[in-house]
Amino acid sequence: MVSISILGTGNVAEHLCEAFISQKEIKVNQVIGRNPDSLANFKNKVDTVLGFKSISDSDVYIIAVSDDAISTVSQLLQNKKGLIVHTSGNVPLHVLPTNLRTGVFYPLQTFTKGQPLNFKRVPVCLEAKREPDLELLHSLASLISSRVYFVDSEQRKRLHLSAVFVNNFSNHMFHIAHEICKDNNLSFDILKPLILETTKKIETLSPYESQTGPARRKDTGTMQTHIDLLTQENYKEIYRLLSRSIQKTYGKEL
Amino acid sequence: MVSISILGTGNVAEHLCEAFISQKEIKVNQVIGRNPDSLANFKNKVDTVLGFKSISDSDVYIIAVSDDAISTVSQLLQNKKGLIVHTSGNVPLHVLPTNLRTGVFYPLQTFTKGQPLNFKRVPVCLEAKREPDLELLHSLASLISSRVYFVDSEQRKRLHLSAVFVNNFSNHMFHIAHEICKDNNLSFDILKPLILETTKKIETLSPYESQTGPARRKDTGTMQTHIDLLTQENYKEIYRLLSRSIQKTYGKEL
Repeated sequence: MVSISILGTGNVAEHLCEAFISQKEIKVNQVIGRNPDSLANFKNKVDTVLGFKSISDSDVYIIAVSDDAISTVSQLLQNKKGLIVHTSGNVPLHVLPTNLRTGVFYPLQTFTKGQPLNFKRVPVCLEAKREPDLELLHSLASLISSRVYFVDSEQRKRLHLSAVFVNNFSNHMFHIAHEICKDNNLSFDILKPLILETTKKIETLSPYESQTGPARRKDTGTMQTHIDLLTQENYKEIYRLLSRSIQKTYGKEL
Repeated sequence: MVSISILGTGNVAEHLCEAFISQKEIKVNQVIGRNPDSLANFKNKVDTVLGFKSISDSDVYIIAVSDDAISTVSQLLQNKKGLIVHTSGNVPLHVLPTNLRTGVFYPLQTFTKGQPLNFKRVPVCLEAKREPDLELLHSLASLISSRVYFVDSEQRKRLHLSAVFVNNFSNHMFHIAHEICKDNNLSFDILKPLILETTKKIETLSPYESQTGPARRKDTGTMQTHIDLLTQENYKEIYRLLSRSIQKTYGKEL
């Protein structure tokens, strides 16, 4: 049995809490937060504590707060013997108190408030200062996910950066397409099967192999037509820059 | 019963042919192509004809060749009474001979050679010069797909442009992430669940609502860290431009 305290009440805290309480080998002692409204979401599931004053003893403290607040919140655990981990892709391990047992428990997924998720498929990236703590995190993570990875702080920063490209920037591509459709009386639904197939492809092909389109073919006529069709200057600029980058990727081929 | 001739032997021709021959209400008379090797892929399924000299009479002629060749190939059908359609997102209807019955049969999907696809879910965008021909195309398309749309030439150009954003450019985002992972000894597999979830989200939320990340939050510290981590100048430039565009999208909010 591993006992856990969760510090924070956002999306990550919510989804982790759900995954933990579904496992009988895990006991969630407390969810601790400063915002009464978001804390209320946890009330029927676990003990909740408003404010960081009365934190009970647990084997693992999971700090799931915004990046800027991680260091401050971790200092409130100075008298604790348990393992203290944060859940951020972007914050190095050494931000946590160096005199304590520390680690990182980073679930790499996009969490939507209130939308259930099969946590078994969420990759969890682990790091710990000491080997036995890494083992503890590994056994904890393996209870809720079948995709557990060891990733150090330097790698994790790059992984988070990669996640910005595949999630945030791809989603912005969808947004631009959505805008074009809206402006031209087209249903965005027409594009959804293409979007799904685009990502299904990466299961079997590398993105390098999957690339198609006018930039890949160096079809300058179509590219110019497309740039002329765009009405917003920054969309034109994005089209040009990404097409150049794709052409550069396959530059040696033609 | 609708009889069909397919002119062209590429991915689109292959997937359309598969979809058509699976329907008993459709008879594929011929597949016609100039390249003996790609024509050979069709040999066990339908009659194949090398070269465009002996084209038999059909109700519908489907020109599935490269954009540049559509006009030339369509001129070879000058003596035909059937309906002549092309399958391109980017070529207007009027490129086909104006004295003949013409239309467009544009399946909006990314087709991979040899990879089977459930055509029922592929959106098919239709256009025709005359109303009865549009009805013929509609009944034909409805036999193989449950997603049939009427889209005129001006709209179709913008739809094709939107497809470049959601497919080509998103895939390039995946490629950049793949490169970052490779350079840092990280398995690209860690990112695959995130990629799948990113696209699953668009089923229930608009891309505008789905957007997350440092640019959305206007977290300039993280953005600068990310730009510093990137080693290629054009990836830095892409990061900056897309982050600016996301910030602009939500500019009025903060």
